[in-house]
Amino acid sequence: MVDYAQPKTPSALTHSRHALTEQYKQVRAFSELICKPLVTEDYVVQSMPDVSPTKWHLAHVSWFWETFVLSAAQPGYTSLHPQYTYLFNSYYNSVGARHCRPKRGLISRPTVTETYQYRRYVDEHMQALFEHLEESRLGALTPIITLGLHHEQQHQELMLTDIKHVLSCNPLNPAYHEAPVSSSLSVAPLRWITYQEDVYWIGYKGEGFAFDNEGPRHKTYVQPFQLGSRLVTNGEYLEFIEDGGYRTPTLWLSDGWRTVQEQQWQAPLYWEKRDGQWCMMTLSGLRAVNKDEPVCHVSYYEADAYAHWKHARLATEAEWEVAASGLDVRGNFVESGVYHPVPMQIALQKEGPMQMYGDVWEWTQSAYAPYPGFRPASGAVGEYNGKFMCNQFVLRGGSCVTSLSHIRPTYRNFFPPDARWQFTGIRLARGGEAHA
Amino acid sequence: MVDYAQPKTPSALTHSRHALTEQYKQVRAFSELICKPLVTEDYVVQSMPDVSPTKWHLAHVSWFWETFVLSAAQPGYTSLHPQYTYLFNSYYNSVGARHCRPKRGLISRPTVTETYQYRRYVDEHMQALFEHLEESRLGALTPIITLGLHHEQQHQELMLTDIKHVLSCNPLNPAYHEAPVSSSLSVAPLRWITYQEDVYWIGYKGEGFAFDNEGPRHKTYVQPFQLGSRLVTNGEYLEFIEDGGYRTPTLWLSDGWRTVQEQQWQAPLYWEKRDGQWCMMTLSGLRAVNKDEPVCHVSYYEADAYAHWKHARLATEAEWEVAASGLDVRGNFVESGVYHPVPMQIALQKEGPMQMYGDVWEWTQSAYAPYPGFRPASGAVGEYNGKFMCNQFVLRGGSCVTSLSHIRPTYRNFFPPDARWQFTGIRLARGGEAHA
Amino acid sequence: MVDYAQPKTPSALTHSRHALTEQYKQVRAFSELICKPLVTEDYVVQSMPDVSPTKWHLAHVSWFWETFVLSAAQPGYTSLHPQYTYLFNSYYNSVGARHCRPKRGLISRPTVTETYQYRRYVDEHMQALFEHLEESRLGALTPIITLGLHHEQQHQELMLTDIKHVLSCNPLNPAYHEAPVSSSLSVAPLRWITYQEDVYWIGYKGEGFAFDNEGPRHKTYVQPFQLGSRLVTNGEYLEFIEDGGYRTPTLWLSDGWRTVQEQQWQAPLYWEKRDGQWCMMTLSGLRAVNKDEPVCHVSYYEADAYAHWKHARLATEAEWEVAASGLDVRGNFVESGVYHPVPMQIALQKEGPMQMYGDVWEWTQSAYAPYPGFRPASGAVGEYNGKFMCNQFVLRGGSCVTSLSHIRPTYRNFFPPDARWQFTGIRLARGGEAHA
Amino acid sequence: MVDYAQPKTPSALTHSRHALTEQYKQVRAFSELICKPLVTEDYVVQSMPDVSPTKWHLAHVSWFWETFVLSAAQPGYTSLHPQYTYLFNSYYNSVGARHCRPKRGLISRPTVTETYQYRRYVDEHMQALFEHLEESRLGALTPIITLGLHHEQQHQELMLTDIKHVLSCNPLNPAYHEAPVSSSLSVAPLRWITYQEDVYWIGYKGEGFAFDNEGPRHKTYVQPFQLGSRLVTNGEYLEFIEDGGYRTPTLWLSDGWRTVQEQQWQAPLYWEKRDGQWCMMTLSGLRAVNKDEPVCHVSYYEADAYAHWKHARLATEAEWEVAASGLDVRGNFVESGVYHPVPMQIALQKEGPMQMYGDVWEWTQSAYAPYPGFRPASGAVGEYNGKFMCNQFVLRGGSCVTSLSHIRPTYRNFFPPDARWQFTGIRLARGGEAHA
Ligand SMILES: [Fe+3]
Ligand SMILES: [Fe+3]
Ligand SMILES: [Fe+3]
Ligand SMILES: [Fe+3]
Repeated sequence: MVDYAQPKTPSALTHSRHALTEQYKQVRAFSELICKPLVTEDYVVQSMPDVSPTKWHLAHVSWFWETFVLSAAQPGYTSLHPQYTYLFNSYYNSVGARHCRPKRGLISRPTVTETYQYRRYVDEHMQALFEHLEESRLGALTPIITLGLHHEQQHQELMLTDIKHVLSCNPLNPAYHEAPVSSSLSVAPLRWITYQEDVYWIGYKGEGFAFDNEGPRHKTYVQPFQLGSRLVTNGEYLEFIEDGGYRTPTLWLSDGWRTVQEQQWQAPLYWEKRDGQWCMMTLSGLRAVNKDEPVCHVSYYEADAYAHWKHARLATEAEWEVAASGLDVRGNFVESGVYHPVPMQIALQKEGPMQMYGDVWEWTQSAYAPYPGFRPASGAVGEYNGKFMCNQFVLRGGSCVTSLSHIRPTYRNFFPPDARWQFTGIRLARGGEAHA
Repeated sequence: MVDYAQPKTPSALTHSRHALTEQYKQVRAFSELICKPLVTEDYVVQSMPDVSPTKWHLAHVSWFWETFVLSAAQPGYTSLHPQYTYLFNSYYNSVGARHCRPKRGLISRPTVTETYQYRRYVDEHMQALFEHLEESRLGALTPIITLGLHHEQQHQELMLTDIKHVLSCNPLNPAYHEAPVSSSLSVAPLRWITYQEDVYWIGYKGEGFAFDNEGPRHKTYVQPFQLGSRLVTNGEYLEFIEDGGYRTPTLWLSDGWRTVQEQQWQAPLYWEKRDGQWCMMTLSGLRAVNKDEPVCHVSYYEADAYAHWKHARLATEAEWEVAASGLDVRGNFVESGVYHPVPMQIALQKEGPMQMYGDVWEWTQSAYAPYPGFRPASGAVGEYNGKFMCNQFVLRGGSCVTSLSHIRPTYRNFFPPDARWQFTGIRLARGGEAHA
Repeated sequence: MVDYAQPKTPSALTHSRHALTEQYKQVRAFSELICKPLVTEDYVVQSMPDVSPTKWHLAHVSWFWETFVLSAAQPGYTSLHPQYTYLFNSYYNSVGARHCRPKRGLISRPTVTETYQYRRYVDEHMQALFEHLEESRLGALTPIITLGLHHEQQHQELMLTDIKHVLSCNPLNPAYHEAPVSSSLSVAPLRWITYQEDVYWIGYKGEGFAFDNEGPRHKTYVQPFQLGSRLVTNGEYLEFIEDGGYRTPTLWLSDGWRTVQEQQWQAPLYWEKRDGQWCMMTLSGLRAVNKDEPVCHVSYYEADAYAHWKHARLATEAEWEVAASGLDVRGNFVESGVYHPVPMQIALQKEGPMQMYGDVWEWTQSAYAPYPGFRPASGAVGEYNGKFMCNQFVLRGGSCVTSLSHIRPTYRNFFPPDARWQFTGIRLARGGEAHA
Repeated sequence: MVDYAQPKTPSALTHSRHALTEQYKQVRAFSELICKPLVTEDYVVQSMPDVSPTKWHLAHVSWFWETFVLSAAQPGYTSLHPQYTYLFNSYYNSVGARHCRPKRGLISRPTVTETYQYRRYVDEHMQALFEHLEESRLGALTPIITLGLHHEQQHQELMLTDIKHVLSCNPLNPAYHEAPVSSSLSVAPLRWITYQEDVYWIGYKGEGFAFDNEGPRHKTYVQPFQLGSRLVTNGEYLEFIEDGGYRTPTLWLSDGWRTVQEQQWQAPLYWEKRDGQWCMMTLSGLRAVNKDEPVCHVSYYEADAYAHWKHARLATEAEWEVAASGLDVRGNFVESGVYHPVPMQIALQKEGPMQMYGDVWEWTQSAYAPYPGFRPASGAVGEYNGKFMCNQFVLRGGSCVTSLSHIRPTYRNFFPPDARWQFTGIRLARGGEAHA
């Protein structure tokens, strides 16, 4: 069993030159460490429009450093290649034209080797910047550098979710790495934890780093509610499947039911039945479904339908944040090296809610929207979050492929309700009746 | 200028047999009155999947009475035709299979005449029910009858929005009716009205009718905010167009910008430039754009981008409801017979917010979501609202094709953010900063 | 049993003023006679892009008279409505912009009544032209007038095929007319008729009217071949279905097999299985499949796969024309009033090939291509045929909804290989081995 | 200037064990030689559904040897990997299920190295077969081995056309190889060469290898015709572009015009205007358009529209074969190492038609159809040609990426009329009037 570490940096806005440099090196190194198990061919493939080739991720994060830090710090800075700005811009309209997202998999060059050279080029310039930039200008750049670190961490998570999707499209079922199969000790029973109604403060307020979408901190009225003590398991979700969940329209949102029919969903993504037994593709290859693990790779639609079937609901993001406040930020994050959710063993049971952090992102019933008084950052980085506040739902808590140092109680992830290739799962809630 | 009447029924849950009967007759008659200007061919066309043929609307509302009232009241009740249940079910999975929505325009039979016969058949059975059903059973059915009245009113609005779209697809620009052009008196200037932060009660609570999605009534924390005193006008929106609003990606939500490009939007729906002048298709035919009228037929994306351009935002639905509470429910509704939004004349100016009711539905920034403790009604009518709580935004206040007797301060309409064929417009808001 | 008449006009190029007038009246009257069974609503619907609303057909043929005859004869001629040129142009780029084909069903106006008024308007002008135009100019216009007659006859056939498709989309299964069910006498057995190899003359040469695509008459080398003595029946085709024809990829052309899978074809168009029995939608409503009737509403792909399964093939159009030369042009045409193919009764058997004319258009294996030396007519009518010589196959012999006076041995109809809504069927051929 | 060699093997059906072995080695080696300029990443990409990754081609041709030769010769033969049969079957329904064609670019494994190992594995087994198989069995297998050689040569051409497309999708414009730019000597003028009408023998007859679609040899009546003495050049095609060819609907087939509009074609594939000058992507990178080179990468639609604009037409395949008979099979084939069409220099002019072989495949106006008496080979290889005889046009003469030893006067290549990524060009024809 893993003894999950406490987060370190870069969640605090460190003004120390040395600390910044170290964080930069660590984050950059981890991006490359993730790629160690890959062969060159794996870096190239884009298995669906939402997925980017690993090679693209590696280059895009470097482009981010170039565009928002190096170009800002050094007026005469030039990229390694004049076309890279076009090729590796993701979605920043302010920065100029860009290559069409669904075509990222058509680009064989720059090669993997050239991509790493591009990283070296950027690293060298960043290193020079860390060493030589005068203190006041480094201080002024620290917020955007810190954003760059978190940006690269976000893409580290995407690299793992995307390569999982790429490998899953291959009938040879290649494994990304070897990992131990979860032991099958007893799972902690699901209990309901009760919270009182009140006006709560929600959103980030502090000295450290947070994304713009986590603020402003503001008051919210929360009705009384109950939260499930742990994540829903594969075994519990199987009962839903076997009860005809995927064939019962009244359990589903209207858009969800249409998606079920159009996509012919019959189980979570990566599940398939072989010889009458449910298997799932994992980063360690194809394995039998382990009933004790948290269910993963479900869409919002499936999470909502499952909750409906259980006569429960998903939590709001305010409820989740109320419950999370005060808990240690520990869990099965990318640092554990498992890259897969693990069962909540009865032996590790505690009183409060468990598995709030790590394992799987928890769908909330909250549409992704600006907090009261929200204003995007000015300049191009203002496109980071605000323009996506539509048709998406908030997820909380991080997953087994998130960095521990990347997460916070106020962290708001968001995906459209039909997205399934992220490590997304279910925690139940109930209650919320007002007493007028 | 119209002296807008106060609403009458059926907003109150009347248990009086006589009153119920009269309301039924009035509502049913108004559905047919709306169709008076139409020729037979107009009833048949479905100009896009969202639009239904007039003939279908007329039959579908009758199907509703059959399915939820007559069948419930009279065990042996049979429809006029065994296939009508299949043809005229809109989206009730609980009731059985149904005809595919985008194919409603392929069905030439039943004819318009047969459709009216179907209405007569249902009216006769309803009449008999009103006359002969014993008091207690009538009382038990009153909620669903009242729902039926509101349901038919909703479809009356859709009949007008849909026939407008049908006629707009015809290069001959046929007019639905003759209506006077708005006089061009001065428009009241836009002022900002300030509201205090507090915990407010939101949602319906009362004796009368309300949809399930308007409750439960519950407490919400609202930050301080300001609301525009009137709707945004065509003239104001034209400034946005002329400033390149439709060509500036940074003003738009990401999904909105994609839609602008894919659909090649350059102005609100029904606008077109002829010989250098902006015209718009109305229910009275093609006319020059009147700068004083409220802008109409804009999507959520356009409303949001416009607000962004004005350094403002849209209101939340809670803010709107706070501002609306205490105001008279008066305005330019379908009863005025104009079927088009009218300018807010300076002469009619008052202190509080104006045009809150009628003219155009006002997009709010609130995603359509269940209120805390929401539970859909049991049975098939539980599919009425809850299953649409995803990927839609709430609109408030009714429009010039809504019935006055249909609307309430707590009324929640909802449409996807790209919908434009409803009478939808813009009211600005600003503020919302928390003071922690 | 029907005693099929010999064709009369307008296959001969009559220069007689009186005869031309009479032909015009007959053809125009028949277009309207076909519509007698329709209700107003039926005229409006476009059930798929290939289908046009009846109302559109009625107006388009009038547009043809206006555009190619009246405008040519009378310089100052004006259409009844300035927009009709835009609305009722089918595909003539030379004539100007036109309404988008798949949107013909969105146009409720002009109404049916106005459409008939448009026809009256054109008829009156044509009548005046017939009465008053000087002899030499009438003579000069006779070719285009004759083309106009044949054009309207082509649309008469399309009106029947299209309304059949429209009614078939209606779950109420409305019938266009009442027709007697075919009696079930014995069907003539299928024999093979042998033809010698030789250089044959193919294509039209004569005094009468023919389309440009039927010429120039030219020599073709035809190998020895055999032709089936009659059309393939429903019963024979059912054996193919029951032998798994629709599930056996090796029987199909590659494009055909993809179509079978994408469209999920399991039988000819209009067939459906009800309670284990094959039924088909006809212009007389839904009926059990009669095994003795010629199979109908099959695509080229199905015709080819069936032939493959029978170790035979389809004829080339040259082979068909060789076999047809010298036969009387008689058969089950639209004049018989059945509007459905009829069985080839054993009692009516003859020595040569039977059912060559009428009943169903016979798919040939010949791609639709220009004959050697082909040149399209100059001017806009040059767009009549030549530009479609790609991705289509030739069909021969006319069908039960073709006019007898419209057909010739050299007549070349053409449709894409996946088209099924025309009355199209199968005649087998075999042989063709060269002896070098 | 290149002195084009005469073809050697494998066009003759050699029964010599040694010769077969040598041919096998040569063909296999050339597949790998073609890949020498590629980096690993290039092998992986599928830039559109019609294109296959180089890696896939290399594996698929090996699969062909396994499936049709090794498995037939050695009952216990097993593939290197049990899934390769599924992954590398192209379109043989008889052989079993297969991986979906448009998803070939999603498969990062087997890697390039593993793909070459697969080739080695097959080569070793083939070598053993060549060495040890008894004479009579080798003789029996010679036809399928010869087919395998030609099959691999076809894929060699596709590897070059496909990698050109892959590289063209990259904004970095990478070059496949360095090649000398064509010298700009004068181009031979276009003359018309006249052929007499007659009954000609068409199709393959001989001892050597030919595909099944080239027979049976049969008599065809050919009208008198004239053929252009050389291919149409870029310069001539530019006149068509500059005369508004891509904006004039009356020049185009109906399907062609729709394609021009939907795809927004304005020039041949790979052409783009940069700073007012036409450039083209070649296998040597982006270059200015050379007016003297044969125009290339045009669809059938463009070839037909160009001919129409020149008041000419394309040849039929019979005409082409009549003209080609008796000419030496020489030209700019893959052996010249240029991989690009070259100008027809005036100095090399001769009396008969020039450039009939090599440079570009010449579109004919003949739809791809079975010759009289055609029967596909039995077994799975019967799927090689026959099932594609629909919606395609025949091309003749080979291209600059075809192997000289692969081509014959009777060789029939075929592609759909909108295909442009092959090396396809235009030769004009005219005449064909019959004299009856
Ligand atoms: Fe990014
Ligand atoms: Fe409804
Ligand atoms: Fe026509
Ligand atoms: Fe192949």
